[in-house]
Amino acid sequence: MGTSETSATPPQPESGTAARDWVRASADPQYRAAVVDLLGALAYGELAAFERLAEDAKLAPTLTDKGELAAMAAAEFHHFDTLRERLLQIDVDPTDAMRPFVSSLDEFHRQTAPSDWLEGLIKAYVGDSIASDFYREVAVRLDTDTRDLVLGVLDDTGHSSFAVDRVRAAIEADPRVGGRLALWARRLMGEALSQAQRVVAERDALSTMLVGGAAAGFDLAEVGRMFSRITEAHTKRMAALGLAA
Amino acid sequence: MGTSETSATPPQPESGTAARDWVRASADPQYRAAVVDLLGALAYGELAAFERLAEDAKLAPTLTDKGELAAMAAAEFHHFDTLRERLLQIDVDPTDAMRPFVSSLDEFHRQTAPSDWLEGLIKAYVGDSIASDFYREVAVRLDTDTRDLVLGVLDDTGHSSFAVDRVRAAIEADPRVGGRLALWARRLMGEALSQAQRVVAERDALSTMLVGGAAAGFDLAEVGRMFSRITEAHTKRMAALGLAA
Repeated sequence: MGTSETSATPPQPESGTAARDWVRASADPQYRAAVVDLLGALAYGELAAFERLAEDAKLAPTLTDKGELAAMAAAEFHHFDTLRERLLQIDVDPTDAMRPFVSSLDEFHRQTAPSDWLEGLIKAYVGDSIASDFYREVAVRLDTDTRDLVLGVLDDTGHSSFAVDRVRAAIEADPRVGGRLALWARRLMGEALSQAQRVVAERDALSTMLVGGAAAGFDLAEVGRMFSRITEAHTKRMAALGLAA
Repeated sequence: MGTSETSATPPQPESGTAARDWVRASADPQYRAAVVDLLGALAYGELAAFERLAEDAKLAPTLTDKGELAAMAAAEFHHFDTLRERLLQIDVDPTDAMRPFVSSLDEFHRQTAPSDWLEGLIKAYVGDSIASDFYREVAVRLDTDTRDLVLGVLDDTGHSSFAVDRVRAAIEADPRVGGRLALWARRLMGEALSQAQRVVAERDALSTMLVGGAAAGFDLAEVGRMFSRITEAHTKRMAALGLAA
């Protein structure tokens, strides 16, 4: 596949579920439950991200910056809307699907409320990047229809690149800022992992699917490898940003 | 024209500016300045509305309600984006165009922070309706290109109809709620008018255009009539909602 060991490239699409469409794949009740969990978690993740980005836009030092963060928030809303529509299509109440993930995501955001604009930018960038890594990881496990949906949402991420310029400029202007933001980025990742592990522990069907299907049974080590691929990619991004992670 | 005296129907498109396109109309520097003011005021109005709706979404009692308010916020963001794009097209820095209106709009929102979900809903509905009345009023004064833009944004309003159902249900469940919300709606309108009058007093070119062009000179009575058409429409909507305004 030509990928180096340090890359975050997730496994490639497999046979089995990944070769089936939704109608065929969802005949397996455990797979169906896992996808409902996944869509619910992603939907609430997007809705919560919308809310927090809109909130953090208030910290923007200029109207241009405020507009950029508002644009990201609006993009998250559209992801939420796409995922909600999909839940309705497969006859699931979106609120029911989201409910199991509300407390973990709210807790994550409560623990990581940025104290200033730069922390808000880092959070937007880190959040957007981790979300897109996770979407890519999970896409290979999914039936063709759900995969198209997830990859469609993924295509529309990357609104956070403006954050990189702003953070670089701030570190150039005052290098001490870099140390503080590096700590912040580490805290964000730590909180994200701790909430993700809580979800994995509580949601069996979802976790089993994430590690490659129900057949092989639940393999915690494989979940660990997925988390470590995502963490590695995060570390590289922070280094590229001038933040030792 | 077949409109009754109590209707809020604005004047119909005129000859003069309303028959010209942007290139021809903007040769008049006062008209150009007025349109830049108008687009700046609308753009910041939409950005501020986005921010407040996203904030008020936190008060939502259910995830469905939260999603609805977030959808309104996202729609306001797209209006902002359309207006910002237009300013860039006509070589105006959006931040410069918005700056004169920041304090009035921020003050409006500061004075009318909803204390609960129902007040937030009323504010969303009233704000959306007044904005669309105002867009319609102003459209007839504009050159053909700017008019198309403004009517395009207007077409996409009306996301607030869900608010009507929620408010009606709340009043049915507890009629005393109606009295409190009627007072609230009156306060919203009062604050909106007071900030609008401040803008009118400060921005000559804009005000002159709003009352029908520079030729006739500035006619405060005509501004008053426009405000009273908008207030009347508001009063009727509140009555339809079961709120004596």
